Amino acid sequence: MASRRVGIWLIGALGNVGASVALGIAALKRGLCDRTGLVTALSEFAGVDLDEPAEFVVGGHDIRNGDLATTAASVGGIRPAYAGELINTCRPDLEAWSKDIRPGCLLNCDPAALNLANRADFSRNEPVVAGIERLQSDLRSFARRHQLDQVVVINVASTEPPAAERVAQLDMADIQRAIKSNDASALPTSAWCAYAAIDVGFPYVNFTASTGADIPAIVEHAKEKRVPLAGSDAKTGETLVKTALAPMFRNRNLKVLSWVGHNILGNRDGKVLSQPDNRASKLRSKDQVLASLLGYLPQTLTTIEQIESVDDWKTAWDHVQFQGFLGVPMTMQFTWQGCDSALAAPLVLDLARLMLAAQRHSRSGPVDELAVFFKNPMGTAEHDLSRQFGRLADFARMLAVI
Amino acid sequence: MASRRVGIWLIGALGNVGASVALGIAALKRGLCDRTGLVTALSEFAGVDLDEPAEFVVGGHDIRNGDLATTAASVGGIRPAYAGELINTCRPDLEAWSKDIRPGCLLNCDPAALNLANRADFSRNEPVVAGIERLQSDLRSFARRHQLDQVVVINVASTEPPAAERVAQLDMADIQRAIKSNDASALPTSAWCAYAAIDVGFPYVNFTASTGADIPAIVEHAKEKRVPLAGSDAKTGETLVKTALAPMFRNRNLKVLSWVGHNILGNRDGKVLSQPDNRASKLRSKDQVLASLLGYLPQTLTTIEQIESVDDWKTAWDHVQFQGFLGVPMTMQFTWQGCDSALAAPLVLDLARLMLAAQRHSRSGPVDELAVFFKNPMGTAEHDLSRQFGRLADFARMLAVI
Amino acid sequence: MASRRVGIWLIGALGNVGASVALGIAALKRGLCDRTGLVTALSEFAGVDLDEPAEFVVGGHDIRNGDLATTAASVGGIRPAYAGELINTCRPDLEAWSKDIRPGCLLNCDPAALNLANRADFSRNEPVVAGIERLQSDLRSFARRHQLDQVVVINVASTEPPAAERVAQLDMADIQRAIKSNDASALPTSAWCAYAAIDVGFPYVNFTASTGADIPAIVEHAKEKRVPLAGSDAKTGETLVKTALAPMFRNRNLKVLSWVGHNILGNRDGKVLSQPDNRASKLRSKDQVLASLLGYLPQTLTTIEQIESVDDWKTAWDHVQFQGFLGVPMTMQFTWQGCDSALAAPLVLDLARLMLAAQRHSRSGPVDELAVFFKNPMGTAEHDLSRQFGRLADFARMLAVI
Amino acid sequence: MASRRVGIWLIGALGNVGASVALGIAALKRGLCDRTGLVTALSEFAGVDLDEPAEFVVGGHDIRNGDLATTAASVGGIRPAYAGELINTCRPDLEAWSKDIRPGCLLNCDPAALNLANRADFSRNEPVVAGIERLQSDLRSFARRHQLDQVVVINVASTEPPAAERVAQLDMADIQRAIKSNDASALPTSAWCAYAAIDVGFPYVNFTASTGADIPAIVEHAKEKRVPLAGSDAKTGETLVKTALAPMFRNRNLKVLSWVGHNILGNRDGKVLSQPDNRASKLRSKDQVLASLLGYLPQTLTTIEQIESVDDWKTAWDHVQFQGFLGVPMTMQFTWQGCDSALAAPLVLDLARLMLAAQRHSRSGPVDELAVFFKNPMGTAEHDLSRQFGRLADFARMLAVI
Repeated sequence: MASRRVGIWLIGALGNVGASVALGIAALKRGLCDRTGLVTALSEFAGVDLDEPAEFVVGGHDIRNGDLATTAASVGGIRPAYAGELINTCRPDLEAWSKDIRPGCLLNCDPAALNLANRADFSRNEPVVAGIERLQSDLRSFARRHQLDQVVVINVASTEPPAAERVAQLDMADIQRAIKSNDASALPTSAWCAYAAIDVGFPYVNFTASTGADIPAIVEHAKEKRVPLAGSDAKTGETLVKTALAPMFRNRNLKVLSWVGHNILGNRDGKVLSQPDNRASKLRSKDQVLASLLGYLPQTLTTIEQIESVDDWKTAWDHVQFQGFLGVPMTMQFTWQGCDSALAAPLVLDLARLMLAAQRHSRSGPVDELAVFFKNPMGTAEHDLSRQFGRLADFARMLAVI
Repeated sequence: MASRRVGIWLIGALGNVGASVALGIAALKRGLCDRTGLVTALSEFAGVDLDEPAEFVVGGHDIRNGDLATTAASVGGIRPAYAGELINTCRPDLEAWSKDIRPGCLLNCDPAALNLANRADFSRNEPVVAGIERLQSDLRSFARRHQLDQVVVINVASTEPPAAERVAQLDMADIQRAIKSNDASALPTSAWCAYAAIDVGFPYVNFTASTGADIPAIVEHAKEKRVPLAGSDAKTGETLVKTALAPMFRNRNLKVLSWVGHNILGNRDGKVLSQPDNRASKLRSKDQVLASLLGYLPQTLTTIEQIESVDDWKTAWDHVQFQGFLGVPMTMQFTWQGCDSALAAPLVLDLARLMLAAQRHSRSGPVDELAVFFKNPMGTAEHDLSRQFGRLADFARMLAVI
Repeated sequence: MASRRVGIWLIGALGNVGASVALGIAALKRGLCDRTGLVTALSEFAGVDLDEPAEFVVGGHDIRNGDLATTAASVGGIRPAYAGELINTCRPDLEAWSKDIRPGCLLNCDPAALNLANRADFSRNEPVVAGIERLQSDLRSFARRHQLDQVVVINVASTEPPAAERVAQLDMADIQRAIKSNDASALPTSAWCAYAAIDVGFPYVNFTASTGADIPAIVEHAKEKRVPLAGSDAKTGETLVKTALAPMFRNRNLKVLSWVGHNILGNRDGKVLSQPDNRASKLRSKDQVLASLLGYLPQTLTTIEQIESVDDWKTAWDHVQFQGFLGVPMTMQFTWQGCDSALAAPLVLDLARLMLAAQRHSRSGPVDELAVFFKNPMGTAEHDLSRQFGRLADFARMLAVI
Repeated sequence: MASRRVGIWLIGALGNVGASVALGIAALKRGLCDRTGLVTALSEFAGVDLDEPAEFVVGGHDIRNGDLATTAASVGGIRPAYAGELINTCRPDLEAWSKDIRPGCLLNCDPAALNLANRADFSRNEPVVAGIERLQSDLRSFARRHQLDQVVVINVASTEPPAAERVAQLDMADIQRAIKSNDASALPTSAWCAYAAIDVGFPYVNFTASTGADIPAIVEHAKEKRVPLAGSDAKTGETLVKTALAPMFRNRNLKVLSWVGHNILGNRDGKVLSQPDNRASKLRSKDQVLASLLGYLPQTLTTIEQIESVDDWKTAWDHVQFQGFLGVPMTMQFTWQGCDSALAAPLVLDLARLMLAAQRHSRSGPVDELAVFFKNPMGTAEHDLSRQFGRLADFARMLAVI
């Protein structure tokens, strides 16, 4: 175990989640924080051979200029999430890792994301073949330079618009043809990145609501390449609570009449999600959850709106009206005020640890035991938070035994 | 199945819960309401031979004068929970059943309860032997007159103060001695009632935070008499939500720093709970839950206060502060506005159905599979709502198979 | 005073507000409710000669079939706002008044409203001249039949879409031309109704966010006809609170960074407001308020969404982020759960009483002292609730003196 | 104006409010913050000759060891209110001023406060005469050393228990006798301090719920000494909102049935307030407000509880149930999450500026125009926030004119 060296490659590394992950690794390395927020630090994982997050080497892709320390300092806006001293102490690592952040992928990039792209060092008209090869070369070079035994690739970039339906119909031959004929429009950006990573044999996690590897052809390719997959759209706030509460209503046979959820957030994610197309992906994965958990679909309303002053402190108000015995109407409301990136970062570390272990245990394709992390879990329709956690605990036992 | 006749005997029948149970049975009988709120109406119980709540015969004890229809009409105060027309239509049953409400037990009655006692037809100085015999005679007579195959006894009276610690040390011989020597102070009122019911072989459920059957000697007696037990303190609101949410924090490894819960309610229950002694029982069963679910005890504060205008619409505000990765503090708050009696009534029906089935399946002593219904479940320390429900589903499968 | 007879004519009488007003008058007449909710019942109005609401005669226009009792019984949906017994006792009046509800105006009716129009007894292609004359004839006939000294006309119909900007440019000659040339599109429906009422000399109140009399040419006409006007868009909930709270932030020099307000409601009003065009009128009058009160416009977001299960119990969640000394960000949130029609009805009665008095005091054109009732008060830009109330108190003093 | 030099003397200078005031002055001096939160920075005060807060010299008394920078850094606990960099930049001033913080007064000190007293440099058994003389000597020496034209004394220490009723009966001769006979128990600590300050002719503000100068004999003494007074118990959060909202309910003639307010806070103030005696003072000034504003007293419940993790971020939940027309019950709730010290500090500066001006305008005794700042304003029973602000604006006009 001691001799194993592993890396974490973040697509969208310079975003708030990416910078929080990097800061967290640097802080853990220095003993400046504990493992609060890491699911893999729970007792269920006591006997499992997982990599120390403090020893992860960090690299990534991004379409923006910037550096990890600057992003980390901006998380939370006027109410900074992380202390200035913490960032200063961790600065040497953040600076070193920032140098390993390579120009990201612009293939078929959506307008909202393109707006953010401001690096000077990449071509906007890169052919598909060249693009894929460049991404793969970055990954291989990262592994080689740092003498890494394994690298896990995690998409933490902003959410892109939903893919056209035809994308689900593509087979691997179609994708190969698109590459050769330089048809970038065949796949959404996130899928090109997922393809590139999987194709070189690196485990891939889609932390966002973008398409990523969630296309039958790519899943098939992952199985062939013996690459484990996980995703998509991490549960960090309102939906997390929803999947804890909806089973309570269902199991008490209380009839949910309406479930309204209003989310406000103000970071770059909020900006991208204020584009109706990009938001659509997010809302779709939020909405399907209730019908699955309740067995019927009450009237629902979910909004995500950008309010600059709240920045990364995503605030949600949920109003649930339900009917009990004898037709009596009642109400439950909750508000959630969480720092999105600080909630996401430890889950990124969890997923990295678990996917590296999954690869060592020869898992390939969707690792559905990781459903507890996602709004739209690959490979399973289970949304009940508690049952999802049960499956994760089973997975931990399996990893421990073997 | 068709020929089986069963009864439900409510201790404190004229309270809001008792009247809601009676109204519910009458409404189900007439097809005026559906089974929303009944856990035993869920698909998990599809193949189980349970009694129809519409066919329950209702009787009970109470220390107050009154009738079921009048109480039912008062539930909810200025915002009535049940429509006047519904009560009017059900009035014939409610009146008939009101006649089967016999004078309750005043043995060792606490001052707050004693204050409510206003029936003319019982002696305040009844000897213990006579009191027990009277209660048992009421139960037997109810069964005989209505030709009932089984009767389940459920305590839905107001919460009494916590019992002295010595009560837990008593053995059956001590209790017998107390009866003979007319020492009513040996047991709290609720325990005298529980003893009386168990001793005649009737399943007993303690729906409240009072002592009831929760004394080793009485549990032992129940096993000898082959009587199943369940309790105590039904989860109908804030604690229900707490036991759904606390596992979420635990399983995400988020560190709960403080959990504050303020409850306001205005009905008779609120009045009794405004007595510090009576409230103590309630708070004790509310507080133990968190430590069990989180694995540590954060700072907690729970209040229950009587605010007349909210009447039965118990309103709770919970404020949870927790710490995530990198020490970032966050907050979740919820409010719960539920009609306590309308939440409780279907659970009383569930417990009646399940306990009658348990008795037919020869269960005796605490039926710990029913933990999902209680804040302080007998026979188990499991508080995780989802796991508790899993155990109930297992119980349903067991009942279905045999 | 005893010999004065007055009438209240409701445009959209069969809506929830209209039915609540009628029920309220009938209940006051029978001593079944007190004057809670009536501003004119406050001590400030002690010496003012106002008409007894219990003595109002009720009539109105509506484009729908129906009757007042049926609507009143439906207010609040599954959680009825008014007791069935109350409605039954008041039924004779409600039935009598229902007969005085005449076919409403369809001139230039917007699609959302048109959808609701289901009366058999009016022509959908009535020429403008005929339409105006019919409305006026209804008003005159109502006054004559009931021997009324005065009649006040109040628009409580659903909100229509904002008027085109050109409408504000019209002069009276343009309007006369449009009438003659049968150009119904010249004015929105609500303005045609306002014109008809004003033209026969009846005081007119626009309780809604529709255009009503809020057109320079019509205001001018009211002055010529010596008719007092009031409007528009009554403050009954979220905006009421906003205008009480925003001055607090301003007067403490706390910098509001963002003010988010999400409103859900489920009645017919909600249905009409779910049409983006109709909603626009409402949001416009909600948004201007903050800038006026704070002296700057923070980021704002206001939504109104139809959630059927809440029906008339409009629920709003407001989230206010503000910055204090030394840049410290803080938050205030509120929820408002009010029965819209029960909040509106007494204000309709207040406005009727005050406008009848205003007419007797020879006021004509906008009565700006009534700003406290409105989101978008005619004749003044004052939005501070407390200052508005001060002006109303001054008005009461003036009425008392003369 | 340029040549005037003024000082602010804080009783309890090392508490969170004191340190925030000092940090604010230092930050204003360096242009590191603006005047957000200062009422005296509003346009109403444009023409008034007030002292620049940036030019205040800071001194004070405290019974604890410590320094301003350390306290400032601790405000907010795990969610620091003030940035580490800001404190570092301001450190030279904070250190200089810390040296002017002299040992506080222990005369008749209550147990909760005494617990905090840990300075080595004062005697616990100082005779009353010596104590008063020492306090006065500190004040005079501060003025002399810094060549100050005026010094205002402001009590920002923790709240002490309510004074015995006999205290209100004392006359000046009684107080003089108590001083001579060394009877420290005659007055609460805060009153001894107030007496000392007033007796040397310095304006005195009681920012807390303690007794301070609120004793007829001391008020009389202030008038004789020509010293202006203000107090008591600054409105910074829940009560501020209450006094903005209660007039709304009153002026809409909505009947408040119950008003429940639960406050949690975790700083030293919270610790002291967790003592029932000390809390009693606070709750008394919170409760009287509603009856005054509504004209009747609905059922009220107010709690203040110490929850360590929230520290200075006082969080309040208020639940208001009210009845509208036709008896319909409705609900408004709000939560307030404010940093108590950051809300208080600018008001301390406002009061200092206004009291120095008042002294220059020869005001003596209670300056009732400052009611807007207090829960329990001296010299007036006006609690309506808006009307209180109107009086302050009048005061500003008066100051500007003269």
